Amino acid sequence: MILTVTLNTALDITYRVPSLRPHASHRVTEVTERPGGKGLNVARVLAALGHPVTVTGFAGGGTGRALQNALTGIPRITDALVPVAGATRRTVAVVDTATGDTTQLNEPGPVIAPAEWSAFLEAYEDLLQSSSAVALCGSLPPGVPVGAYAHLVRAARAASVPVLLDTSGEPLRRGIAARPDFVKPNADELAELTGSHEPLQATRDARRRGARAVVASLGAQGLLAVAPEGHWQATPPSRVAGNPTGAGDSAVAGLLSGLVEHLPWPDRLARAAALSAATVRAPVAGEFDRAAYEELLPRVAVTERATAA
Amino acid sequence: MILTVTLNTALDITYRVPSLRPHASHRVTEVTERPGGKGLNVARVLAALGHPVTVTGFAGGGTGRALQNALTGIPRITDALVPVAGATRRTVAVVDTATGDTTQLNEPGPVIAPAEWSAFLEAYEDLLQSSSAVALCGSLPPGVPVGAYAHLVRAARAASVPVLLDTSGEPLRRGIAARPDFVKPNADELAELTGSHEPLQATRDARRRGARAVVASLGAQGLLAVAPEGHWQATPPSRVAGNPTGAGDSAVAGLLSGLVEHLPWPDRLARAAALSAATVRAPVAGEFDRAAYEELLPRVAVTERATAA
Repeated sequence: MILTVTLNTALDITYRVPSLRPHASHRVTEVTERPGGKGLNVARVLAALGHPVTVTGFAGGGTGRALQNALTGIPRITDALVPVAGATRRTVAVVDTATGDTTQLNEPGPVIAPAEWSAFLEAYEDLLQSSSAVALCGSLPPGVPVGAYAHLVRAARAASVPVLLDTSGEPLRRGIAARPDFVKPNADELAELTGSHEPLQATRDARRRGARAVVASLGAQGLLAVAPEGHWQATPPSRVAGNPTGAGDSAVAGLLSGLVEHLPWPDRLARAAALSAATVRAPVAGEFDRAAYEELLPRVAVTERATAA
Repeated sequence: MILTVTLNTALDITYRVPSLRPHASHRVTEVTERPGGKGLNVARVLAALGHPVTVTGFAGGGTGRALQNALTGIPRITDALVPVAGATRRTVAVVDTATGDTTQLNEPGPVIAPAEWSAFLEAYEDLLQSSSAVALCGSLPPGVPVGAYAHLVRAARAASVPVLLDTSGEPLRRGIAARPDFVKPNADELAELTGSHEPLQATRDARRRGARAVVASLGAQGLLAVAPEGHWQATPPSRVAGNPTGAGDSAVAGLLSGLVEHLPWPDRLARAAALSAATVRAPVAGEFDRAAYEELLPRVAVTERATAA
């Protein structure tokens, strides 16, 4: 199975309101709830593609229970979340039905106690034994050491499990130095890490910091991959309108599924780019539209780029 | 004991954010949660004043569990909430820490099934047997008949339990016709009910619709009472700055506690007005500031008004 790690899981709540006005009172017309956090999004897409996935990280409180209840209903996902005393955070997306715009409110997450972190590390090392690949996704909750991802990357490498890291800021900076097989920064994360806003330059810089391969997700420009096997750009056929929430997570699922299926790089990238665009196009944030995916997949252009700096 | 009924209980969540901007993403810096819904607010104030209170209404789902867990910690409150299959609604108050302004998002509440409504009616009639007074508070969740409060008022009257109704719109219109002992509309509710924006005129009009006594809460102007025993105005000493959330609920608690302690009308009104102002002044929305209450109580001016129309 593929393992995804979400240390800062979330119960994602979406509110639809006719028009959001600060300082006013609003009657919410529609409420939806789903398990959230980047690793859980990746897992959902992997499962939809037919891959058995195990999810780990932390869950606690009433929100954690709601999240875990919702996970039980998803075929091919195994819940290996580690219980914590604090309550899993909520994220609230307020969709203005007049404009379609979304206002996001993200709780910080529960403080993880040292004993809870130790319990997680033990569970993680056990799970690695039966994993074909592992994705480490998202932000760190309070209490988890900032070097956490470096530690998790090293444990995966010691167990010979290919490891992908998708995070930002200092956890990315520390994690990449531990030599993960893949990192998947977006344009902002790449610029923050390297100081460069030129995508190819920044992607190469990121790779020099320790990752075996860097796949940068560049929104409408698709994906840029810099790997020992070559450099590629995968571009969807046209600019896709919709909600970009979860598009990066779908790209991660595309890359990992392609890896465990031993697809060559261009096919992995085409899948990742098509899944990403099909997620932007889906009516529900973070889901992918299967028909759009199948229609887009053969139309993604993958071009090899010169490898010289 | 005093009984408070909250058919549409809520888990009240408060988010503090540095500055709320529509269509942006916000990191919530502080999250607080408390049991909410008008009848639960009334109960908390009654309990703080030393009165044993039983709360009923509905609770369900993870949010209902969180609400009931929080209630167990409050001395003198007995939880008699009836379980339902749907989840108790959340309300989210987003406080902009830069301006102090609040943006409110209210979920609609779970749909109550006919069998759940019947179970509530049975529990309510049992509870009335040991109640010295009952307050019927707030909006109706989906599935509860719009004439619900009229039914609950009649049951209280049949059991000879004094009944106060605090709601709005059609539930108030129907409920008042069933002849409750007290209604406590605010200025907007009064205007909606009677079509009149002149407080004394509207309060008298409301009384003619069936209530034995009407106590209108008029914000900074205090309370206006029209009862068979006389007409009074209770005015706090000065305009109080702060958050008016829950001020009306504190007034209800003041009126009911004064009723069961057999205080004369002017003393009940002084207490209600002081509690209301002390709630506006409290740092936490919906709590009252006890020191402010004790300081304000002797300074509330209660004046008798001519009873002629």
